[in-house]
Amino acid sequence: MDTKEFENICKRAKSASIKAQGLSTETKNKGLTAVAKALEENKDKIFEANKKDLEFAKELVAEGKLTKATFNRLKLDENKMRDMVQGIYDIVKLDDPVNKTLLKRQLDEGLILYKISCPIGVLGIIFEARPDVISQISSLAIKSSNAVILKGGKESKNTNTVILDVINKALASVDGFPEGLLNQVYSRDDVALMLQADKYIDLIIPRGGNKLVQFIKGNTKIPVLGHADGICHIYVDESADLELAKRVVIDAKTQYPSACNTVETLLINKNFKGAEELLNTIKAAGVELIFEPESWHKEYSDLKLAVKYVANVDEAIDHINTFGSGHTESILTENEDNAQKFMNLVDSAGVYHNVSTRFADGYRYGFGAEVGISTNKTHARGPVGLDGLVIYKYKLIGSGQIVQDYVSGKKQFHHKDL
Amino acid sequence: MDTKEFENICKRAKSASIKAQGLSTETKNKGLTAVAKALEENKDKIFEANKKDLEFAKELVAEGKLTKATFNRLKLDENKMRDMVQGIYDIVKLDDPVNKTLLKRQLDEGLILYKISCPIGVLGIIFEARPDVISQISSLAIKSSNAVILKGGKESKNTNTVILDVINKALASVDGFPEGLLNQVYSRDDVALMLQADKYIDLIIPRGGNKLVQFIKGNTKIPVLGHADGICHIYVDESADLELAKRVVIDAKTQYPSACNTVETLLINKNFKGAEELLNTIKAAGVELIFEPESWHKEYSDLKLAVKYVANVDEAIDHINTFGSGHTESILTENEDNAQKFMNLVDSAGVYHNVSTRFADGYRYGFGAEVGISTNKTHARGPVGLDGLVIYKYKLIGSGQIVQDYVSGKKQFHHKDL
Repeated sequence: MDTKEFENICKRAKSASIKAQGLSTETKNKGLTAVAKALEENKDKIFEANKKDLEFAKELVAEGKLTKATFNRLKLDENKMRDMVQGIYDIVKLDDPVNKTLLKRQLDEGLILYKISCPIGVLGIIFEARPDVISQISSLAIKSSNAVILKGGKESKNTNTVILDVINKALASVDGFPEGLLNQVYSRDDVALMLQADKYIDLIIPRGGNKLVQFIKGNTKIPVLGHADGICHIYVDESADLELAKRVVIDAKTQYPSACNTVETLLINKNFKGAEELLNTIKAAGVELIFEPESWHKEYSDLKLAVKYVANVDEAIDHINTFGSGHTESILTENEDNAQKFMNLVDSAGVYHNVSTRFADGYRYGFGAEVGISTNKTHARGPVGLDGLVIYKYKLIGSGQIVQDYVSGKKQFHHKDL
Repeated sequence: MDTKEFENICKRAKSASIKAQGLSTETKNKGLTAVAKALEENKDKIFEANKKDLEFAKELVAEGKLTKATFNRLKLDENKMRDMVQGIYDIVKLDDPVNKTLLKRQLDEGLILYKISCPIGVLGIIFEARPDVISQISSLAIKSSNAVILKGGKESKNTNTVILDVINKALASVDGFPEGLLNQVYSRDDVALMLQADKYIDLIIPRGGNKLVQFIKGNTKIPVLGHADGICHIYVDESADLELAKRVVIDAKTQYPSACNTVETLLINKNFKGAEELLNTIKAAGVELIFEPESWHKEYSDLKLAVKYVANVDEAIDHINTFGSGHTESILTENEDNAQKFMNLVDSAGVYHNVSTRFADGYRYGFGAEVGISTNKTHARGPVGLDGLVIYKYKLIGSGQIVQDYVSGKKQFHHKDL
């Protein structure tokens, strides 16, 4: 795509995003319902396109150019399709995050300030493989009145094209939806154009590996929401319950080893009596234990677990704040003071007590859906749902008030919340 | 400063920021009160340091290397000193933004999720001239439990050093304050180091002109909060009250022409009967009117005003969304529908009806103090007070829950807000 063509998509998206601010909750839900129905009705067409992508991908796997895991994520089946459609109906049920009054304050007689939630504007979403991301992100964008420019993996190009086409046709059938709200680009060069489009794109959300996220952060002025690493820790305190520890660590490591909220480093208090039994149980579950310091900053996403003995909760906290990625960490302890200390001083998006790290997820938190998990320290942190896709504006309504009257002392502010 | 030395400051700040999360509101207010008293008690020492800076700056003004306006902002007097101290007492009175429970949700029996506000961490503040910024930013950082690394203008080096020294000594006298919470660096090279320190610094707040802000945004992975331009608009609708329009436009342009919330472009509905009289009145107030399209994207910060006739409120909205900087815009009209449309569709941090744009300010909004005004579309928008200096973390407390039980269907989430 040339620069001009890309700029036209940006302009269209920007203009659609401004119009989308005026959509009522009812219209947005009508649009979402139409999308869900259209996806169901067109599933054969979508499976067909997916088959084309899979045939090509199969060759790439054979040539060693694509992993088997990516191939599996690319594949759509009846189950994934049902989840996609159900996910949209779930979003219909969620509260509209736009047009909420966050503050209403009388600055002076007849001078009222409102703080009102509103969409961010245009989102740039860069993701790999999984075509089901399109319907999820599109639905969240519709509900939050944001425009999006999607860039998926080239392996799923056929599937992505058909899915977005079905979605856009469904939206066009609903009165009031602005054209150009949901857009898609395809090439690697388009990513470069996206990163330069700070005039049009308000937020970039990359969903992919460390390298992708780091590259994006280093090459754009646009704010980036997401996480590069998921180096999650579990600290087993001196007073931890052994059976609880076995259950939780095995869940956190083996339930879905390639997830970002999987535990990567196990810190064990050197006075914990059950250490040997715990480690044997973990090994018996097929997990390789690694005791080298080089493992402390690694995300294995595999059945491998770094293990380190620490003197106390303070050393555990220090270790996590030094080597962690700010994602999710859990303390296993029967000591309430240590639990409090850990949760207050560990500087991560999620800090857990006696629970598996695998709970770090928008659905599990009850957000209905998530655009991703953020390890940012600004805007949104942890699993990000609809609330992370809005910002606010200030509306001030008066009858000719001027600042000079307040500077001269003729009038005074009284700041009364209404 | 060499890289190692700078990294040490960063590490100290990071460590202090983690300890500061544990400070009680009482301790923080005690610290703020000690700072206010110390500044009062040491004002002669501060004036002395300021005198040194002014002597040097006077030469720079004579050589044409420093503007008279910058010289004036550099100068501290009894009034500014009183405002500085009063500003700190105002912050004492504000609510503590840290440790607020934003959400408490039962995910399942005995599995409770908390969303708790917490400090961002380490703030990098880059500002020019005005030494009173130090006490303002330091006080906001203390109240919000954030660490800061300050980089002021070299013209105010002596004043800045003495002020931060007085503040830090006062904090050291209060039990519990971690060392290294408030730090200062001095050289241009230190700014380069700051921009690279994304491992330690969580947010950069530049307070300065367009060039500084654009340079910073283009040269760091760290999120940047602020505004580059303040191209504010007033749209005079067909039904605007002429006397109100005169009063508001003159206030918005002349009350403090170099402020970022000063009006720069006046859009007039071509059917507005009072146009000629309005423009004559503005001219009579000493304002130069400019009718060239090149003026539409200029921030004059001076007694100059771009003027454009538009067909209707839609054209006004389009013009602002195209040429504006997303700062603050006002519609003057007696037509409620047009006012609503303008405030909903203009994509700016502040959208006003029948009010001067000069009200865009943290003090006037009742925030007590501000770190700056943001035109960002994420995190914080408009005047940013204490609320903009916090983020949140999720705490999850259970008794050995594992995700496998929910995936297998053995248990179900019920997501009940408490």
